[in-house]
Amino acid sequence: MTKLMPPAHPFDTSYLRDAEDGDKLKEECGVFGVIGVPEAANFTALGLHALQHRGQEAGGIVSYCANEGFNSARRFGYVRDNFTKQSLMETLPGELAIGHVRYSTSGGKMPVIRDVQPFFGEFAMGGAAIAHNGNITNAMALRKELIERGSIFQSNSDSECIIHLMARSLQRTIPERMEDALRRVEGAFSIVAMTRTKLIGVRDPLGVRPLVLGQVGDGWVLSSETCALDIIGATYIREVAPGELVVITKSGVESHFPFRKQKPRFCIFEHVYFSRPDSIIGDRSVYETRRQIGVELAKESPVEADLVCPVPDSGVPAAIGFSQQSGIPYAMGIIRNQYMGRTFIEPTEQIRNMGVRLKLNVNRALIAGKRVILVDDSVVRGTTSRKIREMILDAGAAEVHFRIASPPTAWPCFYGVDTPQRDKLLAATMDEEEMRQHLAVDSLKFISLDGMYRAVGEANGRDAKSPQYCDACFSGEYPVRPSDQIEQGFELKAAE
Amino acid sequence: MTKLMPPAHPFDTSYLRDAEDGDKLKEECGVFGVIGVPEAANFTALGLHALQHRGQEAGGIVSYCANEGFNSARRFGYVRDNFTKQSLMETLPGELAIGHVRYSTSGGKMPVIRDVQPFFGEFAMGGAAIAHNGNITNAMALRKELIERGSIFQSNSDSECIIHLMARSLQRTIPERMEDALRRVEGAFSIVAMTRTKLIGVRDPLGVRPLVLGQVGDGWVLSSETCALDIIGATYIREVAPGELVVITKSGVESHFPFRKQKPRFCIFEHVYFSRPDSIIGDRSVYETRRQIGVELAKESPVEADLVCPVPDSGVPAAIGFSQQSGIPYAMGIIRNQYMGRTFIEPTEQIRNMGVRLKLNVNRALIAGKRVILVDDSVVRGTTSRKIREMILDAGAAEVHFRIASPPTAWPCFYGVDTPQRDKLLAATMDEEEMRQHLAVDSLKFISLDGMYRAVGEANGRDAKSPQYCDACFSGEYPVRPSDQIEQGFELKAAE
Amino acid sequence: MTKLMPPAHPFDTSYLRDAEDGDKLKEECGVFGVIGVPEAANFTALGLHALQHRGQEAGGIVSYCANEGFNSARRFGYVRDNFTKQSLMETLPGELAIGHVRYSTSGGKMPVIRDVQPFFGEFAMGGAAIAHNGNITNAMALRKELIERGSIFQSNSDSECIIHLMARSLQRTIPERMEDALRRVEGAFSIVAMTRTKLIGVRDPLGVRPLVLGQVGDGWVLSSETCALDIIGATYIREVAPGELVVITKSGVESHFPFRKQKPRFCIFEHVYFSRPDSIIGDRSVYETRRQIGVELAKESPVEADLVCPVPDSGVPAAIGFSQQSGIPYAMGIIRNQYMGRTFIEPTEQIRNMGVRLKLNVNRALIAGKRVILVDDSVVRGTTSRKIREMILDAGAAEVHFRIASPPTAWPCFYGVDTPQRDKLLAATMDEEEMRQHLAVDSLKFISLDGMYRAVGEANGRDAKSPQYCDACFSGEYPVRPSDQIEQGFELKAAE
Amino acid sequence: MTKLMPPAHPFDTSYLRDAEDGDKLKEECGVFGVIGVPEAANFTALGLHALQHRGQEAGGIVSYCANEGFNSARRFGYVRDNFTKQSLMETLPGELAIGHVRYSTSGGKMPVIRDVQPFFGEFAMGGAAIAHNGNITNAMALRKELIERGSIFQSNSDSECIIHLMARSLQRTIPERMEDALRRVEGAFSIVAMTRTKLIGVRDPLGVRPLVLGQVGDGWVLSSETCALDIIGATYIREVAPGELVVITKSGVESHFPFRKQKPRFCIFEHVYFSRPDSIIGDRSVYETRRQIGVELAKESPVEADLVCPVPDSGVPAAIGFSQQSGIPYAMGIIRNQYMGRTFIEPTEQIRNMGVRLKLNVNRALIAGKRVILVDDSVVRGTTSRKIREMILDAGAAEVHFRIASPPTAWPCFYGVDTPQRDKLLAATMDEEEMRQHLAVDSLKFISLDGMYRAVGEANGRDAKSPQYCDACFSGEYPVRPSDQIEQGFELKAAE
Repeated sequence: MTKLMPPAHPFDTSYLRDAEDGDKLKEECGVFGVIGVPEAANFTALGLHALQHRGQEAGGIVSYCANEGFNSARRFGYVRDNFTKQSLMETLPGELAIGHVRYSTSGGKMPVIRDVQPFFGEFAMGGAAIAHNGNITNAMALRKELIERGSIFQSNSDSECIIHLMARSLQRTIPERMEDALRRVEGAFSIVAMTRTKLIGVRDPLGVRPLVLGQVGDGWVLSSETCALDIIGATYIREVAPGELVVITKSGVESHFPFRKQKPRFCIFEHVYFSRPDSIIGDRSVYETRRQIGVELAKESPVEADLVCPVPDSGVPAAIGFSQQSGIPYAMGIIRNQYMGRTFIEPTEQIRNMGVRLKLNVNRALIAGKRVILVDDSVVRGTTSRKIREMILDAGAAEVHFRIASPPTAWPCFYGVDTPQRDKLLAATMDEEEMRQHLAVDSLKFISLDGMYRAVGEANGRDAKSPQYCDACFSGEYPVRPSDQIEQGFELKAAE
Repeated sequence: MTKLMPPAHPFDTSYLRDAEDGDKLKEECGVFGVIGVPEAANFTALGLHALQHRGQEAGGIVSYCANEGFNSARRFGYVRDNFTKQSLMETLPGELAIGHVRYSTSGGKMPVIRDVQPFFGEFAMGGAAIAHNGNITNAMALRKELIERGSIFQSNSDSECIIHLMARSLQRTIPERMEDALRRVEGAFSIVAMTRTKLIGVRDPLGVRPLVLGQVGDGWVLSSETCALDIIGATYIREVAPGELVVITKSGVESHFPFRKQKPRFCIFEHVYFSRPDSIIGDRSVYETRRQIGVELAKESPVEADLVCPVPDSGVPAAIGFSQQSGIPYAMGIIRNQYMGRTFIEPTEQIRNMGVRLKLNVNRALIAGKRVILVDDSVVRGTTSRKIREMILDAGAAEVHFRIASPPTAWPCFYGVDTPQRDKLLAATMDEEEMRQHLAVDSLKFISLDGMYRAVGEANGRDAKSPQYCDACFSGEYPVRPSDQIEQGFELKAAE
Repeated sequence: MTKLMPPAHPFDTSYLRDAEDGDKLKEECGVFGVIGVPEAANFTALGLHALQHRGQEAGGIVSYCANEGFNSARRFGYVRDNFTKQSLMETLPGELAIGHVRYSTSGGKMPVIRDVQPFFGEFAMGGAAIAHNGNITNAMALRKELIERGSIFQSNSDSECIIHLMARSLQRTIPERMEDALRRVEGAFSIVAMTRTKLIGVRDPLGVRPLVLGQVGDGWVLSSETCALDIIGATYIREVAPGELVVITKSGVESHFPFRKQKPRFCIFEHVYFSRPDSIIGDRSVYETRRQIGVELAKESPVEADLVCPVPDSGVPAAIGFSQQSGIPYAMGIIRNQYMGRTFIEPTEQIRNMGVRLKLNVNRALIAGKRVILVDDSVVRGTTSRKIREMILDAGAAEVHFRIASPPTAWPCFYGVDTPQRDKLLAATMDEEEMRQHLAVDSLKFISLDGMYRAVGEANGRDAKSPQYCDACFSGEYPVRPSDQIEQGFELKAAE
Repeated sequence: MTKLMPPAHPFDTSYLRDAEDGDKLKEECGVFGVIGVPEAANFTALGLHALQHRGQEAGGIVSYCANEGFNSARRFGYVRDNFTKQSLMETLPGELAIGHVRYSTSGGKMPVIRDVQPFFGEFAMGGAAIAHNGNITNAMALRKELIERGSIFQSNSDSECIIHLMARSLQRTIPERMEDALRRVEGAFSIVAMTRTKLIGVRDPLGVRPLVLGQVGDGWVLSSETCALDIIGATYIREVAPGELVVITKSGVESHFPFRKQKPRFCIFEHVYFSRPDSIIGDRSVYETRRQIGVELAKESPVEADLVCPVPDSGVPAAIGFSQQSGIPYAMGIIRNQYMGRTFIEPTEQIRNMGVRLKLNVNRALIAGKRVILVDDSVVRGTTSRKIREMILDAGAAEVHFRIASPPTAWPCFYGVDTPQRDKLLAATMDEEEMRQHLAVDSLKFISLDGMYRAVGEANGRDAKSPQYCDACFSGEYPVRPSDQIEQGFELKAAE
């Protein structure tokens, strides 16, 4: 496919990937919008900072004010490094703004600023900006159709389809055009959009990705997570419902349900990994859910040991739960370097596990001679787990037991999460015992699907016939057909 | 009108304007393209460097090679500061490339990288890039129509209309789509474009802006001026004719004439000011034309004096001609600082004429007590002329006589030149004697319209009924109706 | 005093301070050196990365190789942002290198690159570079004397005195000159230095600041802390002894004791706050010491409550210890944003506690209705503590009890730690109950001096007549007379 | 083809050299100082801008005001790019400032900011800053002696010796210490220095390098050339005399003559090449001197031809003089690209003379078939001359005659000018006819030594027994023994 982008990008974002060793699933985006407050862009910058864990590669803000029209700033790098500058923020005046943080899904490709959202389009009835969290599963087909009809794409982003569909809609208002466009779109989408006078929020019919509504002063806020309400002192009102489109003006919130109603399938991985532990999803504390997974795990897969240690930072809540349930003391056996590392140049003198050592170090004096339970949030490729096991043994641990706070990740996500191809997922090719041998640990146990469902409050576990959540990455059961992927050769689970 | 652009731009280009005091007309663009040579982008960088005088604000290059597809780099600032970096140039591989330098017309607005050409569009039959020198006089109307049909504009540039018109054309090949699009376009355009296999050049039916064809090795070159052929050692072949569209592949040059034939009206100001003195236009040396203007001026408006001094650098050829015709010695009475200045912070201690002093200094020892003829290329607002007169008198000159190598500039250009609004043009509101008093000089004389035509080789001067050139900026006779401008309130010359 | 430095620095380091709210004591420096390994500078970069918590403002590396001589790079900002670039690291070849990270002590002054260590001097017998952790208490007097004798200082750093004293020494070798120079110096110093063939380490006679020796491959390492040995896979050998000067060549380590012997007084605050929890000091795990402080604190100051929550991250080990001793469940009631913030522009809409909210958020669902024990490492000005208390109460906590893992900080440190002036220290002007009222919490208890000494392994607590550690910041008993400070008006504790 | 670029330097200064092809002698420095005016640093920035031709690599300014003490800013790059920023200039308050622009002499070495002047030293009686134009011919010996005595050098600059000598002087005031120091120094020096209350200027006993005194408002100015007085509207008072030291305070100018009196030997190359044509030296217009050289050259070496063309820009005045004396028409046969080029990446397609083409282009239409006299200022290596001849012939010239406005440059300068080593100087190894053949031109003539002396006003030409000027670069007669160079193997002219 033709590309139009500079391979040698001035902004080196390679460290974003290195820092995480490519061994975690990545949320791709966070969205935020606010209406009815002065300096809306400053609120948006704070909100995006709180959502930074959902996308570290780039961020953008669009604001509107009557005198200045729409203004936009899109930048690579962290929110704190760009949207804290007085000179930049002064270019974003107005009481209405939306923003976006993103983690690229584009694999080996270099990021280009044209791909950074929000996207803007000028329609006959005025301009609109749009920011999208999720993934469109029929984007390839839509893009082809739109180009044939004369649309000129400026980005490689699938989300740009939405704005071209809106440009071609025969409807008369922007919210109507958005409904029209979204009816053509398949996949997962939580969208925050704006016109000159309206803040708009939409969730796809299954409600795969989150979106919440809050109030601050006389204004209204939309955000991917509640933690972004907290940072600006906003009050949490409710979640935008699956399939709901809200149109917010200064005079209040209108609710629409433009799509055919379906049973919701919220992404369960938001609970177990993506969302911040201080966020609230579906009235449940994310932290508490994760602690509860540790409790369930200790019930399902107990083991005799001297210490329960989290793999920092995301394993902490489950490790606390595991310790409390098992009575085995909790300890920080692995310390995280808070100054996370880019790729240092490794000295030729051979150093094992450099990648991991840059962010983690074992508390040798604590570990030596002990039987250690390590609680981690997930195993994706298994590369990090192997290195951590090695560090722990180097430090003199007597035994190493892994307990994983999510089921085996055996399937890629096509709904807005960056996952390796299926053959790179450890759990796609090995069963638990094979993984244990591969990681060379004394024991390895994952929480069961039912255990995880219990931890999120489903007392009876998973409803196998009609699951309460989207758990495709564990189960291989995709609630929306990934048609572009199938077109490119992806094979659905045989039983389906 | 709605705008979407960051006012506080990271690249400070203010000095571009300051350096010239806003007191000259500016060519807006230069275009260049090459096919059939290795490292076409390097050739293009050199060509754009030679065309830098046609646009200093920004530049862009698009190249194509089979393995890498289309690649693009657009940057603010001089060609020499961007397109000399190995790391950047390596991102532009291939044997086919086009480029563009631009000077913004957008008045007080801040430049944005999205406005920098070449523009790129992906069509059903493949991608194309396009670079435009000129101005579309019905762009506002076209833009409105295209938006209503669902096109999404990414830039504020009028040239973007062309690529959207092409996207919507029903024709089957890109050259055909370009013809189709350009038939809807009014105004002046010299275009260089490319597909995966073709280099395309077009001039509008009047041939207002220049475009020349050259050969280098086995390849072909298109360029705004011949000086860009010289820098790469290319051979000048011919001008692209008014109304001609050339399609160049490795196998040669095809010529098309898609427009209704009209009498050409080349821009006479290219001869007298815009083009580089070492370029050749219509087989005439630009330098020689300017020297000849000095000769004509000395015949039309002689004066007794001790020295003929050019206002550097553009007044030099006419001053040489004036000196040769009049027998009055030529001298560098004003010296130009080659390290042109941005806006220095002026000390509070009052300093007169700081702006001009940063680039010009009077050769005091030479000037003192002398009667000086100053030869300048043009008078636009008159601000610089006043300051120069003051410097010359400060240095002790006995008399100051201005001789101007172009007629009074009384009308704005709407064909790709940055001119002040009409009421800012000194000659729009004053006659020659009023201007002389305003500038407070001993005498002030402009070359006549006929004198200028004689200098460009029209022995009988201007054909008043059917002028040989576009001279609207002097005569107010616009060969293409400036419809967008009239829509916005511009009044044509009464007699018309 | 005269200064020669640019106030408006191109590198904005203000966020370093903001990020920490100026409400913690700061270690000023970390030092590292390595000899006898290829690419010594790469090892040094990794070591400095592991020591980054000891100084975030700037870092520098000097290396030596026979062909290239001494090379140096000093940069503002994090190690990971500078010393990871291939192009930079290639300029630092050789098998011998030393490095330094620093946190400025210069209060409101802007940092200048000339102040960044290592310092380099060329002596008659060759060059030497030196990096210093600590503070010279008679630097002002030394500087005055040296200037009078004709030395020209290039920095504002007190450490520069050492190299000028060396330049004027009559001794014949660099180690001898260093001994000669250090005998004139009062205060605390852990120094890593290098000549063309030697790596040198020195600790002051009291051994106030740490310095350890390790081995990697055939080479030797000096480092402020053991965590920097771990990152490069080096083996910890021993601490450099108080008053010891080690001279390391490829053939091994020579030990010298050039100073009059004194009873060591290691800085106790290295145990309780500065050092990384995964470092080992005096054969004790820093993490374990801090956990033990929590245990002692729970014994000394128990309270009924529902949750024990650390103030992240430094309160974690003590909170774990407190929870284990008290049986009250441990919980992450406060979540830290890992993307630490610079100063965001606060929206005018009033937002309380913005500074703290940028890095901390309360786990509302967890805290609501609970009696919470908050364990923090120290209280300096008290500003952060107040804001945290407010956040906790906003989230609906029933009671808030503060437990502080260090005694009240009532005196400034003059031995290499950045402390506020005495009147800014909360504990200098209030007793515990006044502080409790000031912070408006239900209870506030500090660990006792004796409790802290017990936690570091002194079973009988503090020896009041001859304390085992330097604890001047708590006790006001300064083991080295701060003569420059007294000259400037500082008053020692009355009893002294 | 020659390339000269710094591998890892953050500031790419390669273009400075490339732009000139290394084929001209370079003045190394310009100095400027002002006292008694508000915002002295802004005046200094303007003065340095006017002196930019004397040093393009870097510039620095030191200012003093009572509240802020001494402040300093030193930067690589042009004055206009650094010292125009409000944020920087605000850091340089006060009514007293000095500045320096420099062109490095350090050959292949990378420039470092530590080498950029003014240098600053703090002495027992207060601080002083110093900026130096010239070269110290016994610097190596001085440096060795000072290091042995315990001075620590921070730069590679020879000028730093002066400040260390001052630091060690036993005198009581800074002007006395400066006299003391300069009596130890051999070579050429024009110095501008400052204390808290004084502006000081000194010229070496021979007065090799220029220094002038001016008045602006109630303040005083020192500058390398008068063109820097013009830019700030200052009045030219007089030259500082050879061997004179002036101490300027608000109350006026004191004059001292601390050195043994010698017959002055001003650098004649300042007249013929270095100084700006609008400067005045010894009451003579530099422009007029150069024009007069052209007149003398036309008398000495006439030739039949059609056109006299300058090699721009420095050949212009002599070409005008040659044309006026010979009656052969003056023409701009070579056009200079005002957007001077860095090193572009040359396309592999072979392009001859790229280096020269980036800045020069031949006016083909003018030159074709003509006999052309090219007037250039000097021939150093001859590389540029060869390329220009080639371009002219390519353009179809019938004959090419070179006339050079200086005598053959056969000896290096050791007094502050960057010259190639002797064996790289064309005139060191060839006589005039050999050079003509080497350059392959129809004729080649240099102005004679006597002709040049006549042009600077010495009606009887050069006094061979006791030359009126330093003309060592032409004659090999060095008025000050270049002792460091002789130490390193340089051989003086045999006859000496």
